[in-house]
Amino acid sequence: QRYSSEVQVPLAANGMPAEHPACTALPHRSCRHPLTNVVENDRLGHCEDGVKGRFDAILPVLQEVAARGLGGGYAENAQRLAQERLGFSLPDKLLENAWVRGFDMRALFASATFAALERGVARFSQRLREELQAGENVDAMLVDCGFHAMNLSLCADGRLKGFLPYVLRLPAGHLLRRSAFAGTLFDVERDVEDWQATELRRYREGFPTTADVPTRYLKVAVYHGSSLDPTHQGCAAHGSNESLALEMALQRLQAFREAIENEFCCGASTDILLIGLDTDTDAIRIHVPDAKGNLSAYRYVDNAQVYRQTLDMDADRARLAVYEAIRVAAESSGWGQGEGMPHDGMRRLIATLLINNLSQIEYVADRVGGWYPDAGHGERFISVGDGFQELQMRNVAYYARLDTVEEGAADLDVGIKIFKHLNVERQLPIPMALHYRYDSRVPGNRERVVSKLQRVADAIRQRYAQLDRNGWLYLHGSVQDLPLGSALEEVDLA
Amino acid sequence: QRYSSEVQVPLAANGMPAEHPACTALPHRSCRHPLTNVVENDRLGHCEDGVKGRFDAILPVLQEVAARGLGGGYAENAQRLAQERLGFSLPDKLLENAWVRGFDMRALFASATFAALERGVARFSQRLREELQAGENVDAMLVDCGFHAMNLSLCADGRLKGFLPYVLRLPAGHLLRRSAFAGTLFDVERDVEDWQATELRRYREGFPTTADVPTRYLKVAVYHGSSLDPTHQGCAAHGSNESLALEMALQRLQAFREAIENEFCCGASTDILLIGLDTDTDAIRIHVPDAKGNLSAYRYVDNAQVYRQTLDMDADRARLAVYEAIRVAAESSGWGQGEGMPHDGMRRLIATLLINNLSQIEYVADRVGGWYPDAGHGERFISVGDGFQELQMRNVAYYARLDTVEEGAADLDVGIKIFKHLNVERQLPIPMALHYRYDSRVPGNRERVVSKLQRVADAIRQRYAQLDRNGWLYLHGSVQDLPLGSALEEVDLA
Ligand SMILES: [Zn+2]
Ligand SMILES: [Zn+2]
Ligand SMILES: [Zn+2]
Ligand SMILES: [Zn+2]
Repeated sequence: QRYSSEVQVPLAANGMPAEHPACTALPHRSCRHPLTNVVENDRLGHCEDGVKGRFDAILPVLQEVAARGLGGGYAENAQRLAQERLGFSLPDKLLENAWVRGFDMRALFASATFAALERGVARFSQRLREELQAGENVDAMLVDCGFHAMNLSLCADGRLKGFLPYVLRLPAGHLLRRSAFAGTLFDVERDVEDWQATELRRYREGFPTTADVPTRYLKVAVYHGSSLDPTHQGCAAHGSNESLALEMALQRLQAFREAIENEFCCGASTDILLIGLDTDTDAIRIHVPDAKGNLSAYRYVDNAQVYRQTLDMDADRARLAVYEAIRVAAESSGWGQGEGMPHDGMRRLIATLLINNLSQIEYVADRVGGWYPDAGHGERFISVGDGFQELQMRNVAYYARLDTVEEGAADLDVGIKIFKHLNVERQLPIPMALHYRYDSRVPGNRERVVSKLQRVADAIRQRYAQLDRNGWLYLHGSVQDLPLGSALEEVDLA
Repeated sequence: QRYSSEVQVPLAANGMPAEHPACTALPHRSCRHPLTNVVENDRLGHCEDGVKGRFDAILPVLQEVAARGLGGGYAENAQRLAQERLGFSLPDKLLENAWVRGFDMRALFASATFAALERGVARFSQRLREELQAGENVDAMLVDCGFHAMNLSLCADGRLKGFLPYVLRLPAGHLLRRSAFAGTLFDVERDVEDWQATELRRYREGFPTTADVPTRYLKVAVYHGSSLDPTHQGCAAHGSNESLALEMALQRLQAFREAIENEFCCGASTDILLIGLDTDTDAIRIHVPDAKGNLSAYRYVDNAQVYRQTLDMDADRARLAVYEAIRVAAESSGWGQGEGMPHDGMRRLIATLLINNLSQIEYVADRVGGWYPDAGHGERFISVGDGFQELQMRNVAYYARLDTVEEGAADLDVGIKIFKHLNVERQLPIPMALHYRYDSRVPGNRERVVSKLQRVADAIRQRYAQLDRNGWLYLHGSVQDLPLGSALEEVDLA
């Protein structure tokens, strides 16, 4: 357990030592929950260490390169060091010219960051391809619960970047799609289009279920807050006001459902689900729909509490207790009062997600003592565009989802501000990775996407002209074919 | 016949007097084609005069207001004049303050232009609502020809703005959609979404035909050229190179068809059709698909030629001759060689469009002597956004279709350049009307569209800051609900 050497009880907002909501022994020792998947926790830990470790090794390697100086064979020595400790080479050109003007450490740092990003994506892509080929477990689980699609929108905050593979333990699946927007303010219009495409596929191809089977399209929204410091480390897009973050996400969900019902006749409808995340502990809270599919801010299951209350049970009893917690929540009275139980499949899905998340609570306990030390920002680069779907890991990037700088300027400005603090103050440049997916089945689409990427790069250079001129901004461009796990193709932005 | 007092034979590119391709007696006298719809020509003429006349009356009215000066009751006199000759009042505030600093003619000109625009939209909307309620003739005609949708993309050039109601004589219909892009470079991805939505509706609602009926989705692209001055007055987006304009439009059509075939299984396919327009005479050229649905640049029917060759026939024989012209084109040999006849419905549709266009050729002959005198630019305002679907009339606006200034800057710059010449050089400001449609069935959509409109307005003011500061740029914002003929709702851009 890596945190044990530096055990320190974090302080709650009231200045008192915090009590961990799931395991009160933390941070001094972890609890052992009967439903935790220890093997999977170990595998995920290796994956996170592998990807983040590579980013974190860059500075020490460059410091050593600098320390060794420009003596004979300096370039070869630097390359050997990079290969050994980072697993890739540095650009020859940057090293060859170093004897004239010294090492260009900013350029070396940026190019190493982008190389680490490429390796991370390649590693994840490999895993995703295996997941897609092998099991299709998620797809089967979803259909089994009565859903033919699960479309999940979260906040673009870097701390939610690992939500699917880590927090919910959902591997890649054909029926699962994910998008991120500042403040979870997802694009209702775009989701209506996704709904149409999904339904059409059922009619035309009978995939994943034929149109006469009463399965449902499920839209999920995820808001977030901080249990340790709720008024400072919550969702920045909503001024760290968790109720507001919740309300806005709920409002979009309802708008989506209403849009489908209004735009399409013949009883068109969808299921909706709302999930809250505590970004300090990765414990989730699931709002339980009633029999009519309606949600309430006040009717939910708190999974930290479930963890705590089921800790001493055997696995079977703990599983039953999860279902019991859902039943109790569904029967809330007062503000959270609903109109009956959600359907069977919905209860099974909620139980599955809660049980999966128990492992993640323990993962955070084992690795960092229960609370993440990087409550604030520790991102490695700024991700611009549609995001790297293959690099789903907490705080690896600050993410600005945008198609034009004109629309995304506010999000970009926040990212630049964070990185001025994280990097420029330490004399390091800001690495910014632009990325868009294309669809090779649509003739000319790749060319159009590449032009768009170059246009966005130009607009970024224009907006941050001074940073760019002074060598504080490094851009990297890449596009990728639509299927998950496709190769990353670098685009020249010179 | 309004042109008769100023008969002047235009010169062809070789410097010789031009010969009209449809009626050789022009411009001295019009021909009378047996298939011309004289009543409809008259009605369309009144409509065009009504709308454009209001724009054209603005300057004379303002000149008279200036000439009358600031004597007693000047404001009331100006308003009476405006009401009489324009049909609307001028903003009281602009008149009230005039005695202090003189008339603010630029502001008066801009606000009168926007008022004329609003009246024009209202007038067209009224007509569209009637058309939609009354006949649904287009819809019936399309289904009768075997199509369940006709999606038409044209160049954004102001000279094509009247293409549907004038050039093709197609009234509004539920199965008919239209979009405009510089150089006809339409958005393949968006059309694939429209295809999906259309097919889904057939499956879910059986509208307009059920999914088992073998009707087709038809995508049409329209390119244009100038018969009088082909190398200068053609499509600006393609350097007035008509072959290039044709090839690019054809390429997008093929990309669209291929995208559908690649993205969707089970024999998904669509029909495509290519139409060329001579913007001097409004005569069209229709490229005839072969039995496999393929098009060729060299296989088409030239409607000016059809007009000329059928001029002396009676109506029935002329109609048969149109079908015969399609058959002859379909049997082209050499470069235009295809693989057999298009299907029956396609031939019926092509014949309908050709016959409709015969009336338009005569309309242009009767009104302006066969060739438009405003071969170049004579636009009244710059239209920014998604365009005013209800104001489909030649050269009424320069149109820049855009969602962000970042993407649409090049098109906007061209518009500004044109209006510096058209207006600023005459001391008149540039009126720019921003417009987007919203969908009232989608909760929150109107608010989001209004925000977008305001963001675009800000970006325009920023890009043309000097024009704006010096009072040469006036913006007008409006949104409109999705159904054709909805009321225009002004949005405050202050
Ligand atoms: Zn957030
Ligand atoms: Zn962050
Ligand atoms: Zn054009
Ligand atoms: Zn023009």
